[in-house]
Amino acid sequence: MAADGIASEQTAREEALTAQVVASFSGTEDARLRFVLERLVEHLHGFVRDVRLTEAEWNAAIAFLTRVGDITTPVRQEFVLLSDVLGISMQTVAVNNEAYRDATEATVFGPFFVGDAPRIENGGDIGGGAAGEPAWVEGTVRDVDGRPVQNARIEVWEADEEGMYDVQHDDGRVYGRAQLSSDADGGYRFWGLFPTPYPIPFDGPVGDLLRAAGRSPWRASHLHFMVSAEGYRTLVTHIFVRGDELLERDSVFGVKESLVHDWVHHPAGAPTPDGREVDGGWASTRFDIVLAPARVAGDGGAVA
Amino acid sequence: MAADGIASEQTAREEALTAQVVASFSGTEDARLRFVLERLVEHLHGFVRDVRLTEAEWNAAIAFLTRVGDITTPVRQEFVLLSDVLGISMQTVAVNNEAYRDATEATVFGPFFVGDAPRIENGGDIGGGAAGEPAWVEGTVRDVDGRPVQNARIEVWEADEEGMYDVQHDDGRVYGRAQLSSDADGGYRFWGLFPTPYPIPFDGPVGDLLRAAGRSPWRASHLHFMVSAEGYRTLVTHIFVRGDELLERDSVFGVKESLVHDWVHHPAGAPTPDGREVDGGWASTRFDIVLAPARVAGDGGAVA
Repeated sequence: MAADGIASEQTAREEALTAQVVASFSGTEDARLRFVLERLVEHLHGFVRDVRLTEAEWNAAIAFLTRVGDITTPVRQEFVLLSDVLGISMQTVAVNNEAYRDATEATVFGPFFVGDAPRIENGGDIGGGAAGEPAWVEGTVRDVDGRPVQNARIEVWEADEEGMYDVQHDDGRVYGRAQLSSDADGGYRFWGLFPTPYPIPFDGPVGDLLRAAGRSPWRASHLHFMVSAEGYRTLVTHIFVRGDELLERDSVFGVKESLVHDWVHHPAGAPTPDGREVDGGWASTRFDIVLAPARVAGDGGAVA
Repeated sequence: MAADGIASEQTAREEALTAQVVASFSGTEDARLRFVLERLVEHLHGFVRDVRLTEAEWNAAIAFLTRVGDITTPVRQEFVLLSDVLGISMQTVAVNNEAYRDATEATVFGPFFVGDAPRIENGGDIGGGAAGEPAWVEGTVRDVDGRPVQNARIEVWEADEEGMYDVQHDDGRVYGRAQLSSDADGGYRFWGLFPTPYPIPFDGPVGDLLRAAGRSPWRASHLHFMVSAEGYRTLVTHIFVRGDELLERDSVFGVKESLVHDWVHHPAGAPTPDGREVDGGWASTRFDIVLAPARVAGDGGAVA
């Protein structure tokens, strides 16, 4: 009985504290901010109580976040990496791109998008001279009823065979990115590069966390797409490569089975779909895109 | 039915993602770290799902944390302030200092403790010449069965009447802190300063958060204690001042009703307990301390 009395007094103290902190936000003018802060407090307090966080662990958490802040610069966003490796980025993508019939699934935006990529015609080349196996990518953009979506804006971007995006060179070079439009039948096609894997930066505290967890910093090979059209939810996604050994352990949890595609490798000299002459072998895949209707409140988008 | 189907597919996707992220930590060698990370993922994902966090809000959160990192230096710990104003620090104190019969309640440690404060005898002065109303503080240190704890180490520290701790001057001056020991009857007594309120730093992102929430950055007036003795749980606490208008809105949630004390203000010329001559009026209070027995795994302590 005495022990029970202590336990219930302790529970009462902890619950009263959480209630007090939640109540402290009651004067928040912005109702949405108030709601978000109140729920944040409840979840974080729930975490502290569930794990019975020790003071040494609290100190370690403060030191970890301080290191995350220290390494973050305008070109190195360790807080985004932390969100990514905890699956928070991908969960945010999930709640903002709700399942809608057979609409193509979304995945993380990533840090390497550039808004004004070169415009190409259908059948053009996004490679920009970058090294890698040429890859023909084609497909259609349709709505959930199978109707073609014409003139959809298709933005694509990817790393070269070294796993580097153009913007990582920091010298203004442009490769591996372009924007094009779907044609009257919703079709699109372009020459890109067969995707290669690369690690997220792992020389900071997030890398240490991955090491402590025995996790890999590598991202599964992928090609980025952003597809937008009036009246439809903007789709930010990747396509992946079936057989890539990293599919099961993508460091940011971006892989969805529906986004894993078969890529065919064609030998040197095999005729290309558009008659283009290619040095050596080339690859091809097909990605048929299905856009969900736009929501009232927003249109999906951009979480790294 | 169709809408239900979409909703359940969406729920399934979100739950699968959380399960996948939790599973990614299964290789963490340190079992406690694995447990803490798994629960952290569950609680943070639960937060994102409960509030349906928008991508704009996710971006705002990243920007906020980046600002917290930017302003943090070795002498300005904004992550600690953030933990404080969300009540996470105080909840950590709560779970590490469980209710035990009538043991004195703990509260936050704060950033202004210094380990090697001047040693004084009972009845000595901790003021070090700082400005403020002199205050006589006395009491006993006992165990939960009422037995005196002799030779307990009592460390006390407080701000001056401007709300500044000595270490905030950054010029090596020492005032408002000391260490002393309980006597054979568990008694202790010293001259300090009547506590005054002060705000936590509010010129950074945490200050902006408080403003958005209509909350005050002020801490209720208090005097810090850390009391340690062999075989007992170290007690880190404050005493507060009954009647202080800030008691109900202490910015870090450090106030516990049991720690709010009556202070008596004596007029100029009133005889002092130890016959000391004081210029002007002086204050006094009594703080009887009850120590819980030490736990096996630790002894309470130090969360800001």
